[in-house]
Amino acid sequence: MSELEQVLLAVDEGLPASLDRLFELLRIDSISTDPAYEESCGKAADWLVNDLRSIGFETRRHNTPGHPMVVGQQQGRNDRCQHLLFYGHYDVQPVDPLALWNRPPFDPAIEQTPAGKVIRARGAADDKGQLMTFIEACRAWKHITGALPAQVTLFFEGEEESGSPSLIPFMENNRDLLKADLALVCDTGMWDSNTPTISTMLRGMVGEEITITGPSLDLHSGMYGGPAINPIRVLTRILADLHDDQGRITLPGFYDGVHELTNDVRQQWDALNHDDTEFLKNVGLEHPAGEQGYSVLEQIWSRPTCDVNGISGGYSGEGFKTVLPSKAMAKVSFRLVGDQDPEKIQQAFYQHVNERLPADCSVEFKTKDGSPATTMPVDAPAFKRAQRALTDEWEREAVYAGCGGSIPVVGHIKNILDMDSLLVGFMLDDDAIHSPNEKYALRSFHKGIRSWVRILDALAEQ
Amino acid sequence: MSELEQVLLAVDEGLPASLDRLFELLRIDSISTDPAYEESCGKAADWLVNDLRSIGFETRRHNTPGHPMVVGQQQGRNDRCQHLLFYGHYDVQPVDPLALWNRPPFDPAIEQTPAGKVIRARGAADDKGQLMTFIEACRAWKHITGALPAQVTLFFEGEEESGSPSLIPFMENNRDLLKADLALVCDTGMWDSNTPTISTMLRGMVGEEITITGPSLDLHSGMYGGPAINPIRVLTRILADLHDDQGRITLPGFYDGVHELTNDVRQQWDALNHDDTEFLKNVGLEHPAGEQGYSVLEQIWSRPTCDVNGISGGYSGEGFKTVLPSKAMAKVSFRLVGDQDPEKIQQAFYQHVNERLPADCSVEFKTKDGSPATTMPVDAPAFKRAQRALTDEWEREAVYAGCGGSIPVVGHIKNILDMDSLLVGFMLDDDAIHSPNEKYALRSFHKGIRSWVRILDALAEQ
Repeated sequence: MSELEQVLLAVDEGLPASLDRLFELLRIDSISTDPAYEESCGKAADWLVNDLRSIGFETRRHNTPGHPMVVGQQQGRNDRCQHLLFYGHYDVQPVDPLALWNRPPFDPAIEQTPAGKVIRARGAADDKGQLMTFIEACRAWKHITGALPAQVTLFFEGEEESGSPSLIPFMENNRDLLKADLALVCDTGMWDSNTPTISTMLRGMVGEEITITGPSLDLHSGMYGGPAINPIRVLTRILADLHDDQGRITLPGFYDGVHELTNDVRQQWDALNHDDTEFLKNVGLEHPAGEQGYSVLEQIWSRPTCDVNGISGGYSGEGFKTVLPSKAMAKVSFRLVGDQDPEKIQQAFYQHVNERLPADCSVEFKTKDGSPATTMPVDAPAFKRAQRALTDEWEREAVYAGCGGSIPVVGHIKNILDMDSLLVGFMLDDDAIHSPNEKYALRSFHKGIRSWVRILDALAEQ
Repeated sequence: MSELEQVLLAVDEGLPASLDRLFELLRIDSISTDPAYEESCGKAADWLVNDLRSIGFETRRHNTPGHPMVVGQQQGRNDRCQHLLFYGHYDVQPVDPLALWNRPPFDPAIEQTPAGKVIRARGAADDKGQLMTFIEACRAWKHITGALPAQVTLFFEGEEESGSPSLIPFMENNRDLLKADLALVCDTGMWDSNTPTISTMLRGMVGEEITITGPSLDLHSGMYGGPAINPIRVLTRILADLHDDQGRITLPGFYDGVHELTNDVRQQWDALNHDDTEFLKNVGLEHPAGEQGYSVLEQIWSRPTCDVNGISGGYSGEGFKTVLPSKAMAKVSFRLVGDQDPEKIQQAFYQHVNERLPADCSVEFKTKDGSPATTMPVDAPAFKRAQRALTDEWEREAVYAGCGGSIPVVGHIKNILDMDSLLVGFMLDDDAIHSPNEKYALRSFHKGIRSWVRILDALAEQ
C-alpha cells in the first residue's frame, strides 16, 4: 500500500473522530455580524488554536479591532517542498428567521435525507465544515507519515460574513507571515454532487447600506400625509430606478469592464449542460429573472447584478400603524465581474441616490468593503495537478467553473501577497448556506478530506 | 354664581383628582394592534367600567372577538333633554422605537416645557386624555347638580388603532343601545393652541398590507443573484409607481369623486392664515411634498394621499447579510376625500400590484377596513351652539377646520345609526400622537373638560 493510500485509509477510519471535532466547532455560535456574539467568535478562534497545536502547527491567535485571526505554521517533509497557504473562516451567518429551522442551528446532527446523510447546522458548509476538511487532511498525513507533504500555513479569519474589516490591515501588516507559493481556499462548491470543481472566476462586490431621512420624527400619516415627504417613497423610487425593464442596471458606466465570454469559455460552459429548469425549480422559480439575452450560468458567473439584501422603515409588526416614518433603510449589493471598478461603481451609486434625493431628505451611506472580480490562471501547472488529484478521488473529470459569490480574500491574496489562489470546495447548491437549515453532505466532508489529502500530495513539489 | 359657573369651578378645583384618574388609565399599556397586549386592553376597559359606574352610569363591558367595548348610559336632568352619544377609544398606538422616548411611555408625568405644562405618556392625547375630558365634565355636572344636563350614552372601543375589526358588527347588533340624537367625538385637534376647533371634513382610508413572495426560501445573492427574482426589487417597483413626478397618485380612476374646494370653503381656509413654513419646520421640513398646485391645508384636508407606513424584507439588522430574500412586505394606506369610493380604490390598487407582478412572484393582500371621507352639516343648530360654547370657553372664535386623519367611526355612526357627529378635540399639532414622546397639553386637558361642561349645557335642549 502506498503512503497516499495509507493516509486515505486513515481518513476513512478516522471519520467518526473527525466528525466529533467538527461538531465541537459547530456548537460555537460564532455569528460575526452581530456584536452580541463577540465572545463566541473568540471561542471559535481559541478552539482552532488548540486543535491546530494538537497536530503540530505552531499557532497563534492574533487579536484585531474585530474578531481574532488564527495563523498556524508547519514545515513540510523536506526542504524542496512547496509552501501552501490555506485560508478559511470560522465565523457564520446569522440564523434568523430562527422559526424556520427544523432543529437548533448550533446543535449539529447527522440527518438521513433522500440524497444521503447530511450534517445539519449553521456553518456546516460555510465554512466550518469546509475548513475542517483541510485540517483533517493534514491530521491524517501527520498521523501516518509524521509530517506534511508540503509546508503549510493555515490562516483563519472570523469576519468573512461581516465584511472582513480587519482582513486587509492584518494581511498588510503580516506579509512575511502569510506569504507562500500558492493559496488554497475552501469556500466554494461543486458543479454537482458527483463532479469535483475548481472555481476560476469569482464575482466581486460593492455593498452599501443607505438610510434616507425625511421628517425629523415619525409622523401621523393623517396629520402630515401629503405635505410631508415620506422617506420610504423616496427609497423605493431610488431602488426601483436601479434596474430597467430588461433587467439591466442603470448606473452610468456600470457595464464598463464587463466582457463578453470568449468562445473557449462559452464552449466549456455549454459542455456542462446546466439544467436551468432544475436549478430554478429547487428554489420555487421557473423563469430566469436576470439580464435578458444571457444564459442562467452567465447571469450567475459572468454578468454583474444588483440586489437589495434588506429593507426596512416605518411599522412592520403585527397590525397597522398609520405612521409616516422619519427614516427608511436599505442594504444594497452589487456583484461585479471582469474588470469592473468597485470604486467607480460606488461613486455612480452615490450619484444615483443623490440625484433622486428630494429637497428635505438627507442620506447616510455605510460602506461594506468593495472588491473586484477575480479570474484564475487555469493553465498554471498547479491547477492541472489539482485537477488530476480531484479527478482521481471522485472518479469524474474535475471541471473549471465560475462562481457567482464574492470571496474578497482572493483579491487581497493577489494584491497584497502577490499569490494566486486555487479554489476547491465541496458545497452543493442546496446547502442553504445563508438560509435556515444549512447542511453539508456527509460525503462532501468525507471525500473533501480525501481530496485535500491527494491535493497536498500533488502540490507538494513543484 | 350660575349653575354652569359652579360646575366650571368644580372642574378647576377637581383638576388634581382628574389627573390622578387619567394617570391610572395611562399606566395601562393597552396597545391594541399587538396581540401581546390583549390583557392590558381588557384591563383598560374594566377600568372605564368601574370609573363610569362611580358617577352613576349604567355600564357594561361587551366582549367581542377582539377587544371589549364599553357602553355606559345615564338619563339627563329632565325628559325634554337631548340624547348625546359620546365616542372615544381606550386603546393606544405601539411605542416603538422605544429608545427614542425620554421616559417610559406608560409611566405618565407632568413635564414643564417652553410651551407650558404637558402630560407625557402614550395615549395622553390619543385618545385617553381626550376621552377623559368628557368623563370629567360629566363627573363635575353630577357632583354639583346631581344630574347630567343631557341624556348621555358613552361608547368606548379598544380597537381604533388596529382597524376596529369589531366595530361595525357591534354597532349593527346594538343599534338601539347606541342610537341618540347627536354623536360627540373627541379624537381631533385644535387649529392652534388658542383656537377651539370643530372638525368638519375627515379623510377616509384604504389600508392594505401586501407581501410579495419570490423564491421559496431565502437565497445567497452570490449563488442566485441574477436568475432569481428578488421580491424587494418587485415591491420597490410597485411602490415607486404609485406616484408620478408631480406627486399625483397613478391608480386609474383614483381621483374620481375628488372635488375642488368651493369658494366659500377656500375663503374660510384662507382666513385661517395657516403658517406652512412653521408647520413643516416643526417636523424638520421646508418644502411641501404633496400634489403640486395645492396649498398645504388642501394637501392635508381636501386632497387624497398615498403613504407607505411600513416596509420590510431581507436582513435589516446590524452588519450585512448577502441574502436574496423569499419575501418582502409593505403596509400601504390611502387617505380619501370627497366621494372617493374605498372599494374602487382597493380594486385599482390590486390591479396596480398584479399588473407589476413578474412571473414566479405571488402576492398576498391583508386588508385594513376601508372607510369613505365625511363632510359635516356645519349649518345645523347643534353645530352653531357648540361653536358658541367653545368660543365662550377659549375667548377666541371657534373655527371650522378640515382634518387630514381618518376617523372611520364617524362614517359608521352616519351609516349605521343615521346620526351626525360633532367633532371637537383639544390635541395640538406637536402632540406626537403616533410617535415617541406623545404628550397632551395640561391646558388642553383642563380647558377640554371645561369645554365639554359648556357644550353639555348648550346641547342639553333642542
